[in-house]
Amino acid sequence: MVRAILFDVFGTVVDWRSGIAREAGPFLSRRGIDADPYEFADAWRGRYQPAMEEVRSGRRPFARLDVLHRENLEATLRDFGADPSALPGPELDSLNRAWHRLDPWPDSVAGLTRLRVGFFIAPLSNGNLALLANMAKRAGLPWDAILGAEVSGAYKPQPEAYTRTAEVLSLAPAECMLVAAHNGDLRAARAAGFSTGFVPRPAEHGPGQATDLVAEDAWDVVAADFSALAERLEA
Amino acid sequence: MVRAILFDVFGTVVDWRSGIAREAGPFLSRRGIDADPYEFADAWRGRYQPAMEEVRSGRRPFARLDVLHRENLEATLRDFGADPSALPGPELDSLNRAWHRLDPWPDSVAGLTRLRVGFFIAPLSNGNLALLANMAKRAGLPWDAILGAEVSGAYKPQPEAYTRTAEVLSLAPAECMLVAAHNGDLRAARAAGFSTGFVPRPAEHGPGQATDLVAEDAWDVVAADFSALAERLEA
Repeated sequence: MVRAILFDVFGTVVDWRSGIAREAGPFLSRRGIDADPYEFADAWRGRYQPAMEEVRSGRRPFARLDVLHRENLEATLRDFGADPSALPGPELDSLNRAWHRLDPWPDSVAGLTRLRVGFFIAPLSNGNLALLANMAKRAGLPWDAILGAEVSGAYKPQPEAYTRTAEVLSLAPAECMLVAAHNGDLRAARAAGFSTGFVPRPAEHGPGQATDLVAEDAWDVVAADFSALAERLEA
Repeated sequence: MVRAILFDVFGTVVDWRSGIAREAGPFLSRRGIDADPYEFADAWRGRYQPAMEEVRSGRRPFARLDVLHRENLEATLRDFGADPSALPGPELDSLNRAWHRLDPWPDSVAGLTRLRVGFFIAPLSNGNLALLANMAKRAGLPWDAILGAEVSGAYKPQPEAYTRTAEVLSLAPAECMLVAAHNGDLRAARAAGFSTGFVPRPAEHGPGQATDLVAEDAWDVVAADFSALAERLEA
C-alpha cells in the first residue's frame, strides 16, 4: 500500500541542536558574545514556529526557511545582547548556512539506504530546497527526490504541505507514509490521509527533553531508530 | 565561477526515442495498431512543443508534463487511426509512464558521477518532478536535487524556467551552467545569464537527424559526451 516514505528532517533525520551549537560556538567566542552555544541553538530554533506561523496565518506571503532563519538569527543575537547590524553580513550568512550542514543521527543514512530499495524516499520538511539539497549532498542522504517547502508552498502542519506533496509525486495520500519524531506532525499527516511512522529522538532537545519521548497515538509503525524502521517495513 | 551544472534531460541525458519505441512496440502489436514504433515515438514527441506552447502563451494554465504526454498520446493514437476511448485507461497510463523509464545514453551516468564531485548537479527539464525522480531512481542518475518544471512553473525556453531555477538554488544565473544537446535551449539559457555547455546527441532523432549536430554559437564548453565534459570542467 505505502509506496513513498516521506521524512521530517530537523530532529528526525538530522541533529539540529548539536550542529548549530558546533558552528555557533566559535562564532560567539570570536565575537565576544556571552552565550552558551546550546542555549543559543535552542533560542534560535525557538523562533522557528512563530516565524512560520506568520506565513501559515496568511499575515505574510510564503518566504523560504533560509530567509526566516536569517531574520531569526538577528533577533536571537539581539536577545543575547549583540547588535547584528554591527556584525559582517557574510559572517552571519555563513552561520545561517549551518542549517545546511547538520549531521544525520548515526542510524539515518544506513536506514534510508535500506528503505530506498523498496520505497521511494524523500524529505517532507519545512526546509527549502537548496537547504535540503546541500544537506543531502554533504551528509550523503540518499533521497530519491528533494521536495522543498517551495514545492507545496505551505508549512507543516498545514494540510497542503502533505496533500500537495502526494500530488506532486502522483500518489494518493494513503500511498505515502510520514516518518517523524514529532507526534504533532504525525497527527496532521494522518488527518491528511497519510500513513504514519514514529521514531523517537529523545536527544533532539538535549538531556532535559520532556516532549515526544513516546508515541502518543496508535501510529501505523513505531520503531526505535531507522534501522528498526527498515526492518519493520521490509517485512 | 560555475557552482551548479543543470542538465536538459530528454535527448541530452536520456534517449527518449528508443525508450518510447521499445515500450510502444509491444503495445501497438497487442492492440493491432499498424504503426512503426519509431514513427509512433516521433509523432508522440512531435506534439510536445505545441502542447507546451499552449501553456507558455498563457492560453492554458500550467499543467505538468505527465498530463500533456497523456493528452498527446490520445491524439497520436487518433493520428494512427486508433480510438483511445476504446482502449483500457490503465494500459494507456502505463504506456504514458514509459517517459519515466527512459534509458540514459551510455556515457551519462559515468559523466554525471564524475561531475557530481566538484559541482552541484540537477536536471533543468520540462519534465515534472515525479517523472524525473522515477527516471533517476530507475536509471541511477545521481542528481543532487530534482527540480521539476513545477518548481519554476514555467516551460523552457521561457526565461523564468532558468532564472527561477537559479533562485531556488540560491545562486546567481552566472553560477549556473546549462548543458544541453539543443542550441535553442542554450540560447535561452545564455540570455538568462547562464553559462552554457553543448554536448551533441546526433542519434536523438534517429539515423536521419539534421538538427543540432554541431554547436551553432560559441558556447562556453563544447564536449563530445559527458565524459569529455567532465574532463573539461574538472580542469
